[in-house]
Amino acid sequence: MVRYDPPLRDYHFLLHEVFDVCQEMTTLGFEEFDQEFVDTMIDEWAKFCKEVWLPTNAVGDEEGAKLSKGVVTTPSGFKEAWAAAVEGSWFATVCEPEHGGMGLPLCFRNTMDEFAISTNMALAAIGALCLGVYDLISEYGIGCLRSLYSPKVATGEWCGTMCLTEPHCGTDLGLIYSKATPMGDGSYRIKGTKLFITGGEHDLSDNIIHMVLAKLPDAPEGTKGISLFLVPKYLPADYVSGLPEDCSDQLAAEINGVGCSSIEEKMGLHGQPTCAMNFDDSVGWLVGELNMGMKLMFEMMNRERLATGMMGLGLGEIAYQNALDWCKERRQGRDLKGVNDPTEEADNILVHPDVRRMLLRVKANNEGSRALGIWIGTLLDQMKRGEGEVQEAAEALVAVLTPVAKAHMTDLGMDSTNDCIQVMGGAGYIRESSVEQFYRDVRIAAIWEGTNGIQALDLVGRKIAPNLGRHLRPLLWPILEFIEENRDIEGMAEFTKPLYQGVRGLQQVTLLLMSEGMANAHFLAAGATDYCRYFGNIMLSYLWARMAKVCLEKQGDDMFYDAKLATARIFFERIYPETISLAAKIQAGHHNLMTYPEAMM
Amino acid sequence: MVRYDPPLRDYHFLLHEVFDVCQEMTTLGFEEFDQEFVDTMIDEWAKFCKEVWLPTNAVGDEEGAKLSKGVVTTPSGFKEAWAAAVEGSWFATVCEPEHGGMGLPLCFRNTMDEFAISTNMALAAIGALCLGVYDLISEYGIGCLRSLYSPKVATGEWCGTMCLTEPHCGTDLGLIYSKATPMGDGSYRIKGTKLFITGGEHDLSDNIIHMVLAKLPDAPEGTKGISLFLVPKYLPADYVSGLPEDCSDQLAAEINGVGCSSIEEKMGLHGQPTCAMNFDDSVGWLVGELNMGMKLMFEMMNRERLATGMMGLGLGEIAYQNALDWCKERRQGRDLKGVNDPTEEADNILVHPDVRRMLLRVKANNEGSRALGIWIGTLLDQMKRGEGEVQEAAEALVAVLTPVAKAHMTDLGMDSTNDCIQVMGGAGYIRESSVEQFYRDVRIAAIWEGTNGIQALDLVGRKIAPNLGRHLRPLLWPILEFIEENRDIEGMAEFTKPLYQGVRGLQQVTLLLMSEGMANAHFLAAGATDYCRYFGNIMLSYLWARMAKVCLEKQGDDMFYDAKLATARIFFERIYPETISLAAKIQAGHHNLMTYPEAMM
Repeated sequence: MVRYDPPLRDYHFLLHEVFDVCQEMTTLGFEEFDQEFVDTMIDEWAKFCKEVWLPTNAVGDEEGAKLSKGVVTTPSGFKEAWAAAVEGSWFATVCEPEHGGMGLPLCFRNTMDEFAISTNMALAAIGALCLGVYDLISEYGIGCLRSLYSPKVATGEWCGTMCLTEPHCGTDLGLIYSKATPMGDGSYRIKGTKLFITGGEHDLSDNIIHMVLAKLPDAPEGTKGISLFLVPKYLPADYVSGLPEDCSDQLAAEINGVGCSSIEEKMGLHGQPTCAMNFDDSVGWLVGELNMGMKLMFEMMNRERLATGMMGLGLGEIAYQNALDWCKERRQGRDLKGVNDPTEEADNILVHPDVRRMLLRVKANNEGSRALGIWIGTLLDQMKRGEGEVQEAAEALVAVLTPVAKAHMTDLGMDSTNDCIQVMGGAGYIRESSVEQFYRDVRIAAIWEGTNGIQALDLVGRKIAPNLGRHLRPLLWPILEFIEENRDIEGMAEFTKPLYQGVRGLQQVTLLLMSEGMANAHFLAAGATDYCRYFGNIMLSYLWARMAKVCLEKQGDDMFYDAKLATARIFFERIYPETISLAAKIQAGHHNLMTYPEAMM
Repeated sequence: MVRYDPPLRDYHFLLHEVFDVCQEMTTLGFEEFDQEFVDTMIDEWAKFCKEVWLPTNAVGDEEGAKLSKGVVTTPSGFKEAWAAAVEGSWFATVCEPEHGGMGLPLCFRNTMDEFAISTNMALAAIGALCLGVYDLISEYGIGCLRSLYSPKVATGEWCGTMCLTEPHCGTDLGLIYSKATPMGDGSYRIKGTKLFITGGEHDLSDNIIHMVLAKLPDAPEGTKGISLFLVPKYLPADYVSGLPEDCSDQLAAEINGVGCSSIEEKMGLHGQPTCAMNFDDSVGWLVGELNMGMKLMFEMMNRERLATGMMGLGLGEIAYQNALDWCKERRQGRDLKGVNDPTEEADNILVHPDVRRMLLRVKANNEGSRALGIWIGTLLDQMKRGEGEVQEAAEALVAVLTPVAKAHMTDLGMDSTNDCIQVMGGAGYIRESSVEQFYRDVRIAAIWEGTNGIQALDLVGRKIAPNLGRHLRPLLWPILEFIEENRDIEGMAEFTKPLYQGVRGLQQVTLLLMSEGMANAHFLAAGATDYCRYFGNIMLSYLWARMAKVCLEKQGDDMFYDAKLATARIFFERIYPETISLAAKIQAGHHNLMTYPEAMM
């Protein structure tokens, strides 16, 4: 039986002790966001996820979503689990009150995401999409689209999708074939085939709102000619033509030419239908301006990228908890230094350094990732609600940190679930353990929303290179300031010293990438992935140093702080050193890769 | 559709150009083992695997083995694919002529293993077990066991298993409960439950020969009281009691009390039944001496460990070929330095440095692993047939290299299949791609035959520590000699220089482990896995330097050598540097791990 204890204490620590989120949010105008309120909300959501979502997760993997005659049925219990979250108004927490939301800060959503992902990633991912679609419609939908669709998608009563990929193109969307024909009355007819559409068709909600990339017949070539359309599965019952002005939320009997032709057989995430979708002269309405589809989709994707990063953490966390429980029970051999538990015929396997090595590495990466998630969450709120320099700095940081969080946290999620299988031996490889499901499920997170390689190229090519690394200043200067302020505090040197070296190292590899990359874009691209991982490592180093500082102040009160300090040491002694090899790989450059004869590969 | 081209040219290079295996084997007394013969055999086996086994592989994953009323049915085509290999006498190639074998050198078997694993790992693993069981019976079975069972198991007409693990113990076999009661007539009655038994029950062969670990009622405690028994699924039809003297190979109608109670639902390797086996007063006969079961089982496991290492390579190779093919076809974006293929609307994704980074890393690790497999293969022959110093040196090297090959090659296999999924993006995550099957299948190889953590402990604790690292001399001195002899050859410095640093580094971390480990076994165990990976990396560095040397001599004749040199450079520039971080992790020691409070994990 799978176990899960939402990491409430850790969130308490991060939200209130490390980041002082309530104070921060009050400054940004969220007046009712006090500690008691936050804690109550988080407790309730955690309870909900554990009690309502968790029992559906293994069933979802086992049964999988099924397609029959164009209708997708989700696994047993999914419909009810989704409906319960809609009923509890959980999906709308961070949406605007005018759309039925609670108007809570975005940083709260990250916390929610982790519990949701741990207990049912298939449902959680659909929830994340709803929020993305909500953001797009609320921000860019013209009035009647906003008033009709925003409240429904906010609550999850209707679900949303992103329809980008086509059979012949995913990363390179400039190649899409989908066409949008203007009807001259404010509506369009959409025609095309989209592939790998998460939640493209299912029975969780009465309606599904597709955000579809398509091109007008006379659109400019490539990505500059892509527009974004809102295409509902069902049109309003009283819709006739043009825009859905004054239409009701009653749905037509006939679907809007939107059909699911197949669902993918995937390695994992079986509970969630990944659909091939056909749009056959479907009625759609433009969202945002013509030919601005890529920009809008990227905005949505930014939010999804952070949610995807959280998938690495959510699955890493629940895998850890289950592997740890197993290790506590499993008795094999004796402590190498002698019998540890003479009442039993063997010690539990936590006496073995190699088992601890794996588990504690997972723990350190999970807790570091959690801090990164919260940090970016607060930056999103500063970006949305802050003013002047606060807003600008937050925007610069979010731009840089988003690809890092997506790639690094999902890479770590794969490493973590892998280690969790390994400590369990054969028991980790079988279905019964659940951990193997997490290993399969997390694998997609390194791919969707832009593969991790694409994230790394975004980081070096779009975020760092255009201004020769100057974008790093608002990020690295405060870190250097933090080091300066804390280096002489007793006990901090063991953390600030490697952090300082790491930041200097990051500056050096950045300089190298910039100087070599100016002359040769291949150099930049060849080092991108290793650079992104280096970057992620240093961000976690910074967050671990910040967490260590809080713990040093509070040490002694509570074992929690001692353990956290011990985890910080694990991080700096056993994970931080990975940067050294990464730097060497970045230095290797592109030459050996690009001169390799393709015919001999 | 999955593609597979057996890497024949690479085997030709390794067997004839790098290792000069025919000359070596002639010296050892294998007289007919000339190049023409070897090449013909390899070609034929490769053809067989590709034509007969490969088409069954995806079916095996899809259908899985099924248990119904105690009978296990393998997936469609498995029975025929197995029978065809039996018919062709392929399994018996390295067995003795007196048992129907061809008496070929063991190094030939490694080559066979790779093709078999690539095309159907489920069947290949059963084949590897047959050989292990054959070795045990032929070496330690008393006369009538040998004459009755060796020829049948040699050919694969009857299959074999290893029955070690029980529900409560796997790694720590001292805890087993299975009992063997002596009947006083040379036979025993075996009672017990065994878990995770690969091929414990199936329909590939008429009989299955189980090698079962059990304890006599009065046996010494722990592993010192374990004996090994041969327990056939069916007894000979004319068997009455005692030993099976003069019994025929006709089988009894009734099963010998051996039953399969369940098969595991696993993450991968669905085609192969992993069984829970009950022995209910089954008739068995002692193999080897009383209470020597562990020693014998370890001998068998040594052979299996190398075969398991080859699983990392076999799946890494076929994953690479399919990912590469996909990349050649897939067109997304343009070369960052400009349009590469103006006739198409996008370039293929091999123009992207990050895609090449992943693929070429896989290629370099595959080819390095292949060389390691052949090297150990020839050492096994030297160990078996050589004399005096040759034999002794080979034995020392095999002892050290076996755990390294098992752990390192399977770790690399996981990395490789992971990278191959990643280059394919969403297409890599779906069933259709095949690569996701290889990713799931290879995962077990890091677990069975002793987890990779256990391999690492075997390396440091049993192979290196007992004589303070002196066992490394017969390994490292020839490598240092190789460096010395070749450092001044034109073009070799770029390979011998890092290799020299790597060997020196390995000596240093070995010294560190020994000196700290003497005082504290936890230090040794905490660094074991990182040390084993370090070790594996340096072994591949050595082999890459040897391969580079051959290529430098032949360069220009054939693109093959230029490409191989380029791959060697990829290895030294992009994989070798991983040792730096590993050394730092080894230095971190055990303290941070072992002082971590268990209650706070």
